[in-house]
Amino acid sequence: MFEQLGLIGCGLMGGSFALALKRAGLVKRVVGYSKSPSTTERARQMGVIDVEAPSALLAVSGADIVLLAVPVAATEATLKAIRHLVSKDMLIMDVGSTKRDVIDAGRRVLRDHVGSFVPCHPIAGKEVSGVENADVDLYVGKQVIVTPIDRTQPEQLQRAVDVWQKLQCNVVQMAPEAHDAAFAAVSHLPHLIAFALVNGIASQTRAEDFLTLAGPGFRDFTRIAASEPKMWRDILLANRQELLEQSQVFQRTLKAMEAMIEAGNADALEGFITQASQLRANWRMGPKKG
Amino acid sequence: MFEQLGLIGCGLMGGSFALALKRAGLVKRVVGYSKSPSTTERARQMGVIDVEAPSALLAVSGADIVLLAVPVAATEATLKAIRHLVSKDMLIMDVGSTKRDVIDAGRRVLRDHVGSFVPCHPIAGKEVSGVENADVDLYVGKQVIVTPIDRTQPEQLQRAVDVWQKLQCNVVQMAPEAHDAAFAAVSHLPHLIAFALVNGIASQTRAEDFLTLAGPGFRDFTRIAASEPKMWRDILLANRQELLEQSQVFQRTLKAMEAMIEAGNADALEGFITQASQLRANWRMGPKKG
Repeated sequence: MFEQLGLIGCGLMGGSFALALKRAGLVKRVVGYSKSPSTTERARQMGVIDVEAPSALLAVSGADIVLLAVPVAATEATLKAIRHLVSKDMLIMDVGSTKRDVIDAGRRVLRDHVGSFVPCHPIAGKEVSGVENADVDLYVGKQVIVTPIDRTQPEQLQRAVDVWQKLQCNVVQMAPEAHDAAFAAVSHLPHLIAFALVNGIASQTRAEDFLTLAGPGFRDFTRIAASEPKMWRDILLANRQELLEQSQVFQRTLKAMEAMIEAGNADALEGFITQASQLRANWRMGPKKG
Repeated sequence: MFEQLGLIGCGLMGGSFALALKRAGLVKRVVGYSKSPSTTERARQMGVIDVEAPSALLAVSGADIVLLAVPVAATEATLKAIRHLVSKDMLIMDVGSTKRDVIDAGRRVLRDHVGSFVPCHPIAGKEVSGVENADVDLYVGKQVIVTPIDRTQPEQLQRAVDVWQKLQCNVVQMAPEAHDAAFAAVSHLPHLIAFALVNGIASQTRAEDFLTLAGPGFRDFTRIAASEPKMWRDILLANRQELLEQSQVFQRTLKAMEAMIEAGNADALEGFITQASQLRANWRMGPKKG
């Protein structure tokens, strides 16, 4: 049980965390701060937070648990804003989709207190953002990746794991580098491709006619192209090295398929599609069972 | 009202059409043929067809409406099998995802009777195939593209439009070339990309770990990668010219994004993502309203 959650960023991710923490009876009060005062006010009106803080620092004042729910590129500035009140006993977590850059920011800014910071990535989200879409069930049944470093305090790591588990999440621990490589492959690259596909179509004179004919396949394939631009700008830039490597693997594979199609090599093409089809048909979201 | 539907191919698409035609009271009996006798038998047991035909030709015998629901690459052979019984008064339709190759086959094989053939593409489907998944509602509310040629008989075109409309479809008429370009962009290329992405991940040693972490974005983006391999082999090969052109547009766009990411050009990247995000957020499936 925590006394006070200092919530920095009262949007979809932060707001949903506050609601879930309250419902689970894990916190007495939530003090929230958002860059936009109207967001903070709206969060209080909605009961997502109890008290509006006029600054990130004041949201942390008196907090024993802090959640950074800001775009990953804002992590360093946010940590700078709160570092004077960060203590050894405080649990600080983030929810960023990239981890190495966030950890680097933590090391640079928090220095001796970096052990209080437990980098987290809950695999949850929506295409809509903002506190208006905060959802007490957003994290239920989802995976949360925690990527501690050598200097992470074991007690704080344990507390972080406990919190997410009490919110009904499956917690997976891994190295930050492995995390970033994996998410480049299964999340960041699909987003990059979806953005490129939609804009590639839009660049053509017949775009409007094309889009009128698009069906359920297009709808699902491009759903992630509607994601929040600033957030994804930051993620793609933060994880650029792994992302560009994964994009190369993808483009090599695409070119191999194109060569089969150009050559009319039906057998090779069928074998290739069969491999993808079987793999995808047998894939299930979530951690391996057994 | 038709006397007899000659159904060639009793799978998902054909079976669903037969069920819908029966429910709408538009046909007295359905005579079906599938390459695999067990499929034809199963279709009869399920009430999808009334009579099993031992050949495509015998399914057409006595039919006043014929539906070819076979892989596009099998169109020519199928038309050859039935051409001796094709008459001027018979309405022949297909449901193929490509149209120029199907029309070319029609011209070559049907010759003077090509006017009875109305090329159709209902934008409907599932990732599962087979008569077991036939669904009387598969076509309800969906778009059906009809791509007549100069020689198509106007009366047969009108009958085809009427049938689909009575099955509660929105019928759109367009040129075969425009159809194939549009579907290369919004359907065939997304499938090609989804296959390549899944196989690109599978080619890496850490593939299993990567896939364990994949979330809802990956799930929806790759849903179409589970599609039926033979069917998609045929579609990708049949529409190869338009597909490869669309793939080039996509790869150029992808490379432009990669250059922004490599250069750390946050403003350009944000602008690019914003364009995609707004376009996709405002897109709605189906024909333009108003």
